[in-house]
Amino acid sequence: MEHIKKYVHENKERFINELVDLLKLPSVSADSAFSQDVLNTADKVKFFLEQAGCDKVEICETPGYPIVYAEKIIDPALPTVLVYGHYDVQPADPIDLWDSPPFEPVIKKTALHPDGAIFARGACDDKGQMFMHVKALELMMKTNTLPCNVKFMIEGEEEVGSSSLSWFVPRNKEKLKNDVILISDTGMISNQQPSITTGLRGLSYVEVEVTGPNRDLHSGLYGGAVANPINILSKMIASLHDENNHITIPGFYDKVEELSKEERAEMAKRPFSLDEYKKALDIDDVYGESGYDTNERNSIRPTLDVNGIWGGYTGEGAKTVIASKAFAKISMRLVPNQDWKEITDLFQKHFENIAPKSVKVVVKPHHGGQGYVTPIDSIGYQAASKAYTDTFGATPIPVRSGGSIPIVALFEEELKSKTIMMGFGLDSDAIHSPNEHFGVFNYLKGIETIPLFYKYFTELSK
Amino acid sequence: MEHIKKYVHENKERFINELVDLLKLPSVSADSAFSQDVLNTADKVKFFLEQAGCDKVEICETPGYPIVYAEKIIDPALPTVLVYGHYDVQPADPIDLWDSPPFEPVIKKTALHPDGAIFARGACDDKGQMFMHVKALELMMKTNTLPCNVKFMIEGEEEVGSSSLSWFVPRNKEKLKNDVILISDTGMISNQQPSITTGLRGLSYVEVEVTGPNRDLHSGLYGGAVANPINILSKMIASLHDENNHITIPGFYDKVEELSKEERAEMAKRPFSLDEYKKALDIDDVYGESGYDTNERNSIRPTLDVNGIWGGYTGEGAKTVIASKAFAKISMRLVPNQDWKEITDLFQKHFENIAPKSVKVVVKPHHGGQGYVTPIDSIGYQAASKAYTDTFGATPIPVRSGGSIPIVALFEEELKSKTIMMGFGLDSDAIHSPNEHFGVFNYLKGIETIPLFYKYFTELSK
Repeated sequence: MEHIKKYVHENKERFINELVDLLKLPSVSADSAFSQDVLNTADKVKFFLEQAGCDKVEICETPGYPIVYAEKIIDPALPTVLVYGHYDVQPADPIDLWDSPPFEPVIKKTALHPDGAIFARGACDDKGQMFMHVKALELMMKTNTLPCNVKFMIEGEEEVGSSSLSWFVPRNKEKLKNDVILISDTGMISNQQPSITTGLRGLSYVEVEVTGPNRDLHSGLYGGAVANPINILSKMIASLHDENNHITIPGFYDKVEELSKEERAEMAKRPFSLDEYKKALDIDDVYGESGYDTNERNSIRPTLDVNGIWGGYTGEGAKTVIASKAFAKISMRLVPNQDWKEITDLFQKHFENIAPKSVKVVVKPHHGGQGYVTPIDSIGYQAASKAYTDTFGATPIPVRSGGSIPIVALFEEELKSKTIMMGFGLDSDAIHSPNEHFGVFNYLKGIETIPLFYKYFTELSK
Repeated sequence: MEHIKKYVHENKERFINELVDLLKLPSVSADSAFSQDVLNTADKVKFFLEQAGCDKVEICETPGYPIVYAEKIIDPALPTVLVYGHYDVQPADPIDLWDSPPFEPVIKKTALHPDGAIFARGACDDKGQMFMHVKALELMMKTNTLPCNVKFMIEGEEEVGSSSLSWFVPRNKEKLKNDVILISDTGMISNQQPSITTGLRGLSYVEVEVTGPNRDLHSGLYGGAVANPINILSKMIASLHDENNHITIPGFYDKVEELSKEERAEMAKRPFSLDEYKKALDIDDVYGESGYDTNERNSIRPTLDVNGIWGGYTGEGAKTVIASKAFAKISMRLVPNQDWKEITDLFQKHFENIAPKSVKVVVKPHHGGQGYVTPIDSIGYQAASKAYTDTFGATPIPVRSGGSIPIVALFEEELKSKTIMMGFGLDSDAIHSPNEHFGVFNYLKGIETIPLFYKYFTELSK
């Protein structure tokens, strides 16, 4: 393990500078205005993979943004690790809430990151965490310690639903053949208490459009006499939760896995302070489904959130208008066994059913993905657990995450292999928010831990 | 009356071209980006008032946009008519729904306007209707038929609450002294059946802000565990109406004037086809307060409409975020006897009360105004009625409008005179909407009718 510490110590400045270069590219996949930047980012990732020592690196065209594939095969008889990550990032807005420009990375110390953290969109999700794997390979190549074969598949549409990946994977099963899939796109409890994500929530993301009159109307001449699509949309959204914050869509909970008392007790052991949680978010109270605590609400329970809403006059001043249309983006987080396509259908039918005759409703499914659970008795989990224990000096706790990496379920279905989610970020790293950052400590610890996973996974595979 | 028809006939091309010039100026008072255009419009109005024959025209400075004042005093012993209008216009958005640019006027024939209509923002509300009075004065001056004194007060903030006018009027009572106030900023039933607006609704306009967590959050990591301000705002808005579409704000209806069976029967005589109404708006059904029909809902009943809503990610694609804040612009149309300040307070208290502990709510009152009723036995109403009867060949029907001209109540309070609302627009002219227009027939009829009002008002005042 000494050679690892030594190499990281000697190269950490460069490791950081190279990541900073990557973060300067605004690879926002959700906004076509950035499409050239997304493509440039793919080229940059290709460059770094070649530099790290892969002997085959390709930009694979897809119906959407390309997938960067790379491999280093040292012996077909040895196990193969497939590393997945994404080079695209979330939109940066609201930009005015960033303390520094989202694509001009700066390193600042924070209470949780005394060694400093890199502030930039994508610093943690997922450029920083993806790049740890590139640097870990470089380390193993330069120190001649790569114990097995490795493949990389880095996509550019994770933040918009990975539709091209779903197209790519079934068409390249042989090329992607592997014994375990390794992803760093999740978090851990703290820098003192590592954790490994064993469960992910699924996702169904839809956009709804409510149309009232065929044109915007004067709210004085028509107000009170015609359905106002914004009022109606608000009413429809409100009706999606009952007074206990249960979701009211018929059949929504039918397949939800209810955890046993024991499992819930296990989960409850996770260190957690409700006061600190509220303080960190500056809220007087939490809010959620009756009968479940905060950590259960955001991990083992399905949810429905409006991610965006707009309609009518939103400019400066006042406009007395009744809008013709109102819109909302709505996403549902799903738990294992809930099928996202089925839930999307249930939502669509229900939302159309509850619309009054005085408006027209269109529901456009955006994308989605299944939930997932990793067995903690698998070789992959054991190898990851030993690796963290070596580098952090503490055994990682298995946790269910509330987030979604839809493609994990796809991998299991298409490639028949399990995914290990070795996350090194913290919940406080503000991914998807202004001032996203990634601790320098976490970044370097990741680079140190990954080679040990390769070592233990290869040993345990014998 | 022949001299009137003759003058209009000989000058109508110029009348139209001068209005087109005025409409080319984007005097959007709600958006500070247009402030210079608003000021230029005031200068243009001054120019036209001088050209029409006023012997005193001033640009009166105010805390906001200036008020253009003009007068033609022929004999202090004669009655004085004060003409009010506004030179500012509503914002043009959504601009992409306009068939032609909002500030590049075009004349097109429509089913209701076989002689053509001028399409532009402000064509009807209120530049076109205000300009009829300028041209009517020119006509009376050029034909030596002005029978009384006239004053003009044209403001630039009607679309944003007339706050500077409320400042100006009390400070200029002597200057504004008059016997009747004449406004053309309302509509009439049809080009075959004129009507005079005898009632206006009051207005209370507020903006609300709901804040949940102190930053945007990842909807996977926090979804279900914290209050989503968009879901909460939707819920709060939904709760403002009950299942009968009565407004739920405590005390909201306390002072609402309930009309007698007789009055409601009188109103019901107004020609109206629900099918045509629905067809014109392309809606399958109307929607409103139980126990009242469509024409009652939008005239004698108070309402609450969301005029704009926004929050979270509203861009292209998908962003799985829980927004920190959600906003809405909400306006209430009030009926005579409801005090807008009192209603604004009731709204504010109620909205703050219904907010769950998990969010913070701010209610910002925008502006408002009182409702108003004109007695139909007044000299002013009688003079207007006779004028319309002469030019349209049909006696106008008195109607209550759902719209608000808050300053009408102010005039009565400060200047102690009644306002006559001689509107020449049609409900279908799409004021406050894309493709606003004003019929050439209506424009010229207005210029013909106004001098007759002066004539009859002067005679009846003797």
